[in-house]
Amino acid sequence: NISTMEECKSKKLTLGEPQLAYDGKWLKYYNVPFTSENGKEGIWEVCGKFPPKMKTSEGSDAPAETPKFGGVIIFPIATDPETNEKIILVEKIFRIPVQKYCIELPAGVRDPHEFDATVTALRELKEETGYIGQNPRVTSVVRSDPWKSTASHAQVFVDVDLTLPENQNPVAELEADEDITPMWLKVKTLKTELESLAKELDADIDQRVYAWALGISRFL
Amino acid sequence: NISTMEECKSKKLTLGEPQLAYDGKWLKYYNVPFTSENGKEGIWEVCGKFPPKMKTSEGSDAPAETPKFGGVIIFPIATDPETNEKIILVEKIFRIPVQKYCIELPAGVRDPHEFDATVTALRELKEETGYIGQNPRVTSVVRSDPWKSTASHAQVFVDVDLTLPENQNPVAELEADEDITPMWLKVKTLKTELESLAKELDADIDQRVYAWALGISRFL
Repeated sequence: NISTMEECKSKKLTLGEPQLAYDGKWLKYYNVPFTSENGKEGIWEVCGKFPPKMKTSEGSDAPAETPKFGGVIIFPIATDPETNEKIILVEKIFRIPVQKYCIELPAGVRDPHEFDATVTALRELKEETGYIGQNPRVTSVVRSDPWKSTASHAQVFVDVDLTLPENQNPVAELEADEDITPMWLKVKTLKTELESLAKELDADIDQRVYAWALGISRFL
Repeated sequence: NISTMEECKSKKLTLGEPQLAYDGKWLKYYNVPFTSENGKEGIWEVCGKFPPKMKTSEGSDAPAETPKFGGVIIFPIATDPETNEKIILVEKIFRIPVQKYCIELPAGVRDPHEFDATVTALRELKEETGYIGQNPRVTSVVRSDPWKSTASHAQVFVDVDLTLPENQNPVAELEADEDITPMWLKVKTLKTELESLAKELDADIDQRVYAWALGISRFL
């Protein structure tokens, strides 16, 4: 649909072809030339696993069925069998870029053969925490840090039934470079739970789980 | 405090010195060597405006008073004078990395002389939207994408009084490369407001405002 394509172009900026500036093993770094309305020329720096948005099927090499999510963010929700309260599974994970433990939602990158975010979410949840999830619900695909990154994530809510036999002694399948510990926190008081845990562990909190917690607490 | 420093080191990973791999104008790329518990050696790729966490005042060049936030994410909250409902100011902003408009919270980078996130938040809000904010409240500093990035943001809630004379005809001070349009959305129904607006504008939604909206809507 050409009119839609036109609408999503910037009214103020004209872009040139992205130039690969540095090709890491995982991350790629691009310079994107732009010209502003008043003729100012510049370069925008972009980082990501993927190049700046490929042309869509209107005129390009990317197949029409290319999934629009590069990864998933998982919200694993359970009912505490003892208290009957809603709880959410977060991870204490050591992050080399910040050289510190962070408290985050489980997450992961799409495998090339995965075209359905619910498949990626259930697989990553099992690998990272050992838990078997059910009833995955995908919300809109979102942008993680569109200022500098091409990353996109499907947000997938997953139920975890803690009464199931297979969820009694969950065993993660971690890589040697993954230092991850799953932890259940109460949904209702998630903001203060996160803050207490971060202080106790000298950890930082990821913005996405914290923003959700702020919403839950009606923090205004 | 040495014991705290020890605790925040990974139990499974030993890190080497970050090596600058590519030095862009804004973004820098680092390779961080690591060795895992079982002797596996590898390189972790890191991207950000800042290098991987500098040593703290326990033994380094970074002054003790260095602020721990690299930028701010702003939640500008107002009461609609007509309906008396809570509303939040978001931005439609063209993002070169994703080559599309995104719907995001106002945000910005700390100026070198700014040591208080509320100062950065009020300045950026005025520059990007023209609105004068009041009563800034800072929540925990959070990590935006600690998988690959050194970025950290203070989340600052700001009241905007729409009855003030100075907020009647707000004028932004945009750079030539900024294509930003502020828009007010209802807090109570933010999730559906964001989804409708994204569809209407063929825009993507930023993960942080969407996660907050999911929390507000009690989406589980």
